[in-house]
Amino acid sequence: MIAVSRLDSFIRRLEAQRACLNLAANLVHELDGEILELGLGNGRTYDHLRELFPDRKIYVCERRLAAHPDCVPPAEDLFLGDMRDTLRTAREPLAGQIALAHLDPGTGDLAASRALALDLTSLIVPLLRCGGVLVSEPTLASDQLSPLEPPDNVAPERYNIYRLVSRS
Amino acid sequence: MIAVSRLDSFIRRLEAQRACLNLAANLVHELDGEILELGLGNGRTYDHLRELFPDRKIYVCERRLAAHPDCVPPAEDLFLGDMRDTLRTAREPLAGQIALAHLDPGTGDLAASRALALDLTSLIVPLLRCGGVLVSEPTLASDQLSPLEPPDNVAPERYNIYRLVSRS
Repeated sequence: MIAVSRLDSFIRRLEAQRACLNLAANLVHELDGEILELGLGNGRTYDHLRELFPDRKIYVCERRLAAHPDCVPPAEDLFLGDMRDTLRTAREPLAGQIALAHLDPGTGDLAASRALALDLTSLIVPLLRCGGVLVSEPTLASDQLSPLEPPDNVAPERYNIYRLVSRS
Repeated sequence: MIAVSRLDSFIRRLEAQRACLNLAANLVHELDGEILELGLGNGRTYDHLRELFPDRKIYVCERRLAAHPDCVPPAEDLFLGDMRDTLRTAREPLAGQIALAHLDPGTGDLAASRALALDLTSLIVPLLRCGGVLVSEPTLASDQLSPLEPPDNVAPERYNIYRLVSRS
């Protein structure tokens, strides 16, 4: 038995991310609404969302485009800039329209991700449909979000799933 | 059944990489010699090699340091620069000393990785001990290297394992 390497941890994180997105896709199967990717990065999870939701529009918020050329969203679906600003811009067109949002700040720094998530939670919630699901790497705290059981093999708080339960 | 996303492919690649390194560690268990990491990148596989081989020296060739601070090798074990040059420099101290080498050019471009591997193969082979193992993302061609069966669940040519069978 060897210790857990960074390679092991990274694989576990990606597997948890995929398992949560797949579970969330099942959870919103019957719920109308669009998809929102918060943090595009290299576009791997955006591509996964495209496979999961071939018939839904996927909006993307990203600070600065650095995705693989195959994973660049259409310009009209992209909100480019600091998410603290772009989520305010997105409020008017997207309020109550999002069935599934995925937040992966991708800072590589857990403390920075949590701080950003703290700023963003109250900006994301108004975009969700009632019953909508929010998948998030950082743990979130909001009385409007109810934590859901993670998929099998995903340790608690490694990757998180919430459902919008009420709107203040 | 959904198509394979870039997230799926990436997870498969990392799982194949880890499975091949773990298998290779078993294969060289009884063989004296040091370890050589060809391409450090962010240092995830270097960290995995440290866990697999806590008692062996791990030399690293890398063009330009960009690893996580926890995964930067000691300066005396690092050959910094183009591997076409540094593998020539490494020839004198390391000839016939390496039990396991791992080549991951990490270019993100399969054609570029294969071209680099083609240039490097004849520079890596002289560093291997007789019976030494070379794990490589790109497929290699050398009459001194015999391809080994990949681990279960690793598709042929996704990640490759070779053993030095003769020295020209």
